[in-house]
Amino acid sequence: MKKNILIIPGDGIGQEVTTWGKQVLETVAQHYGHEFSFDEAIMGHTAIEATGNPLPDETLEKAKASDAILFGAIGHAKYDNDPSAKVRPEQGLLKIRKELGLYANLRPILLFDELLDASSLKPEVLRGTDILFFRELTGDVYFGEKKRNEDNTFASDLMNYHRYEVERITRKAYDAARTRNKRLCSVDKANVLETSRLWREVVQEIAKEYPDVETEHMFIDNAAMQLVKNPKKFDVVLTANLFGDILTDEASQIAGSMGMLASASIGDGTGFFEPIHGSAHDIAGQNKANPLASILSAALMLDIAFGLQDEAKAVTTAVAETLKAGWRTGDIANAETAPDKILGTNEMGAKVLS
Amino acid sequence: MKKNILIIPGDGIGQEVTTWGKQVLETVAQHYGHEFSFDEAIMGHTAIEATGNPLPDETLEKAKASDAILFGAIGHAKYDNDPSAKVRPEQGLLKIRKELGLYANLRPILLFDELLDASSLKPEVLRGTDILFFRELTGDVYFGEKKRNEDNTFASDLMNYHRYEVERITRKAYDAARTRNKRLCSVDKANVLETSRLWREVVQEIAKEYPDVETEHMFIDNAAMQLVKNPKKFDVVLTANLFGDILTDEASQIAGSMGMLASASIGDGTGFFEPIHGSAHDIAGQNKANPLASILSAALMLDIAFGLQDEAKAVTTAVAETLKAGWRTGDIANAETAPDKILGTNEMGAKVLS
Ligand SMILES: CC(C)[C@H](C(=O)O)[C@@H](O)C(=O)O
Ligand SMILES: CC(C)[C@H](C(=O)O)[C@@H](O)C(=O)O
Repeated sequence: MKKNILIIPGDGIGQEVTTWGKQVLETVAQHYGHEFSFDEAIMGHTAIEATGNPLPDETLEKAKASDAILFGAIGHAKYDNDPSAKVRPEQGLLKIRKELGLYANLRPILLFDELLDASSLKPEVLRGTDILFFRELTGDVYFGEKKRNEDNTFASDLMNYHRYEVERITRKAYDAARTRNKRLCSVDKANVLETSRLWREVVQEIAKEYPDVETEHMFIDNAAMQLVKNPKKFDVVLTANLFGDILTDEASQIAGSMGMLASASIGDGTGFFEPIHGSAHDIAGQNKANPLASILSAALMLDIAFGLQDEAKAVTTAVAETLKAGWRTGDIANAETAPDKILGTNEMGAKVLS
Repeated sequence: MKKNILIIPGDGIGQEVTTWGKQVLETVAQHYGHEFSFDEAIMGHTAIEATGNPLPDETLEKAKASDAILFGAIGHAKYDNDPSAKVRPEQGLLKIRKELGLYANLRPILLFDELLDASSLKPEVLRGTDILFFRELTGDVYFGEKKRNEDNTFASDLMNYHRYEVERITRKAYDAARTRNKRLCSVDKANVLETSRLWREVVQEIAKEYPDVETEHMFIDNAAMQLVKNPKKFDVVLTANLFGDILTDEASQIAGSMGMLASASIGDGTGFFEPIHGSAHDIAGQNKANPLASILSAALMLDIAFGLQDEAKAVTTAVAETLKAGWRTGDIANAETAPDKILGTNEMGAKVLS
């Protein structure tokens, strides 16, 4: 198989971790006889520094021309504490999602038995958890009109959904539920929001096409609670952009570490694969970041973008075995981890490769 | 002290639990020589059934004329599954919040040592947690303009804040932080939302008036995660209406049970005190509901609305001692609880009273 892969390291630890995602893809190509060619492009803070634009045209062109994108991380504290900044790293990420039509963000909550201890939840609450989130990614209050009046006494963001936006992600989520445990939980705030009431109507309609899948509707406040109380009860969770942002981060902690979780954004064209962790500038360049989420993002790319299930499986198994052998990065180590088992980014990457 | 208290039982288990909140207030009045007089009014599904209106004018008038309100719960599954219903129980709650100017919702996350085990979080993660949420309650996407186009292909809700709305709750939160551990965490999504950027600007400005309080700004996705990872790190959490709805429910599970948590809504006039749990129609009328949140809501009323700290303390202590003696309702019992220690609503209420 011949594929063009674009690497966008982005900001902070993005560079370090995508290096290992890329090396894993190279190794897979060699081993299984595929031809993966790589290109690189800038986005986010890095791109603002270089060009003034968080998503330069060149990056967008390369992205559209590639078969899949491996992305690192985005953001910089400088902008977070300056609410009045007009140009922001995150604009690059939001724009590429929109431009590539990446309307479905898939976030599997994958638990490695070895890491059950790393979670703040009790192991017996956690064990057996296997959730696949479908977060809508190109609509909602993220992309609605933003206003600020001149004297800074008022600001607004329009939360909105079109029926077709809800329909297309709902179908994708139901299709996935069919291949899993056949349960779908749609999360909204239909007791308050008109957008959620439209969302719920559409899901109720489409549910009829999938009588073999059990459908549940849950309010976001309750879902945020149930996810802590009993994560096992969820199979596929379908939700809007903002609610999905919140729930998937919450779920990541349930899984023990953000450093372990990968996500796939798919839609009309090229797929986009990234860890769900942020740019973590505080540890950037120090060989401390956990490369496993980037490696698992590469596995998702193999599986979802290229349909290479065996190759994806091989990567996931390599990660599982590395953990089973006791190797940890700092973020997933605990008090009982022997100091000589704690690895840096590069050493962990190399372990998985070998 | 002479006070007029309005009881609004609302829907589902609301009736059963407010009965006990009220009895506790009566007992306190007797014991400490206060004169509390009580009236009752309807709201929510109960009020729709009786009058067609989730907040009848008579209820609103009584509410405005009272010194404090003890509320039960709201909602009915019937409406949840009918996104097209025009009249909904929750409208009553939203309207009374707006009409009484209840812009600040205080939700203390109070941990009873005896219940550390009831949480899905590890006791060592939990122990020492003491959070006070300030959730804005009369603005945000809850009250912005809602639209639905005629052919049902589009829906929207306007998320918006006025500067003065952010200012007044921010001051209240800082004032509270001063009397506590002097740390305030403001939660927003300023990397995406204009509303959040205004929010952050205002908090940054007001922070300067409180140099003795340590201020932190956190994105909502990160906060949802940190709350599970390390709840102890929070002292006062200040946030908008929608984010507050989500975070406080999540935090309630961290505390072990929704059945234990009370909230106070305050603002321009009469204060409004309610459990944070819902109407739980599935167990309504079965003498199964946990009355402790309603009793603790009464304690908050004594403390916040009437300034009766000693009386409030006495109630909280009575609850703590009942728990210490091993008494539980079903929701806070666990596998090790002896069956004869598990009480119904009325028996639990009576234990606390005695
Ligand atoms: C960086 C930010 C804009 C982004 C989001 O909110 O979507 C991030 O939190 C994510 O979840 O990918
Ligand atoms: C019932 C509902 C409208 C309400 C809210 O979202 O505010 C409830 O969840 C709460 O938190 O008090």
